[in-house]
Amino acid sequence: MSEFAGLYETIHARRDVRGQFTGGDLPDDVLLRVLEAAHAAPSVGLSQPWDFVLVRDDTLRKAFYEHVQTERDTFAATLDAEAAERFSRIKIDGVLESTLSVVVTYDAARGGPAVLGRHAIADAGLYSTCLAIQNLWLAATAEGLGVGWVSFYREPFLSGLLGLPDGLRPVAWLCLGPVTHLEAVPDLERHGWRRRRPLAEALHTDGW
Amino acid sequence: MSEFAGLYETIHARRDVRGQFTGGDLPDDVLLRVLEAAHAAPSVGLSQPWDFVLVRDDTLRKAFYEHVQTERDTFAATLDAEAAERFSRIKIDGVLESTLSVVVTYDAARGGPAVLGRHAIADAGLYSTCLAIQNLWLAATAEGLGVGWVSFYREPFLSGLLGLPDGLRPVAWLCLGPVTHLEAVPDLERHGWRRRRPLAEALHTDGW
Repeated sequence: MSEFAGLYETIHARRDVRGQFTGGDLPDDVLLRVLEAAHAAPSVGLSQPWDFVLVRDDTLRKAFYEHVQTERDTFAATLDAEAAERFSRIKIDGVLESTLSVVVTYDAARGGPAVLGRHAIADAGLYSTCLAIQNLWLAATAEGLGVGWVSFYREPFLSGLLGLPDGLRPVAWLCLGPVTHLEAVPDLERHGWRRRRPLAEALHTDGW
Repeated sequence: MSEFAGLYETIHARRDVRGQFTGGDLPDDVLLRVLEAAHAAPSVGLSQPWDFVLVRDDTLRKAFYEHVQTERDTFAATLDAEAAERFSRIKIDGVLESTLSVVVTYDAARGGPAVLGRHAIADAGLYSTCLAIQNLWLAATAEGLGVGWVSFYREPFLSGLLGLPDGLRPVAWLCLGPVTHLEAVPDLERHGWRRRRPLAEALHTDGW
């Protein structure tokens, strides 16, 4: 795909990538377009509470990778035998293989004390941060890149690793970079972990 | 714009709409494409924890609108005089004017008990729901529609209004429908509430 790919094409081609990263170069101008797309997301009270930490340093990535493996084991230990067997075949991250990672953080103090639209819903700023992540994900997809959201980590570990100031919360570790291809079917469906739900089951009218 | 609009064009044209809804018809096939885009979002453990409640009923919308006005007053009372004056000029919702609303909910039990990727981060499923919302928002934008996320409400009120089952959490009330136009500059910036932050301030490398 290219940056001119249509929106629907991009939305439906997007995948959560673990195994297809090549580690190839990611030109600065492409990375900038992707980050500008993220930064153009809507945010409660125009607070733009996100930051983006680009992680290229090998020592940091290896330390995070080791932590992810520990968390993988922790999760595996909660599964019954059949689920554990299925899980053992699933690759859960591309931290070492991807060209770089982007850690997206949330600052609850940004735009305060009175953030328009957040007085009743404390999590609204966290929601905004996720909207930026989806923009990043789609822009990367349109650029022919892959994104993999790694969630096998403890937030205090990642905050410590990156030296995040108090009050900042890491929301996502995103592996990013060129890929060989995007799979047509999500990894977890291909590996028999779980099937997608039909849209019709998710639709309701005027109440539940 | 059209459904064939490019991704970047859509991302940068997207606005949080309050004042430009026409209340015009929204054809079923267009609405379905928008909802399919939302439903194609990534989700932790392929849990797809979202549901979409389409709200067209006037009684429900008026009840929600009245609640929003009350919350508007609650927020206004927290502001100093100058901010209160600026806030008084800002329209915060298009609940009555938009063609319909879509309430997006989160079900923490979906895909459980062992949701792959959620054992360490309890909010990961909530994050997934927000990714679906951004897909919906962009698809609507590409279709020439407007979306306005209303966050001046209390979650228990909305849960009660729609009869949501215990354990489901409303994440967003989205006004949706045809608009006269999308503004070039966000409402809150046009009204002097807050300026956008330069991207460069949000970028960090290998730590804070």
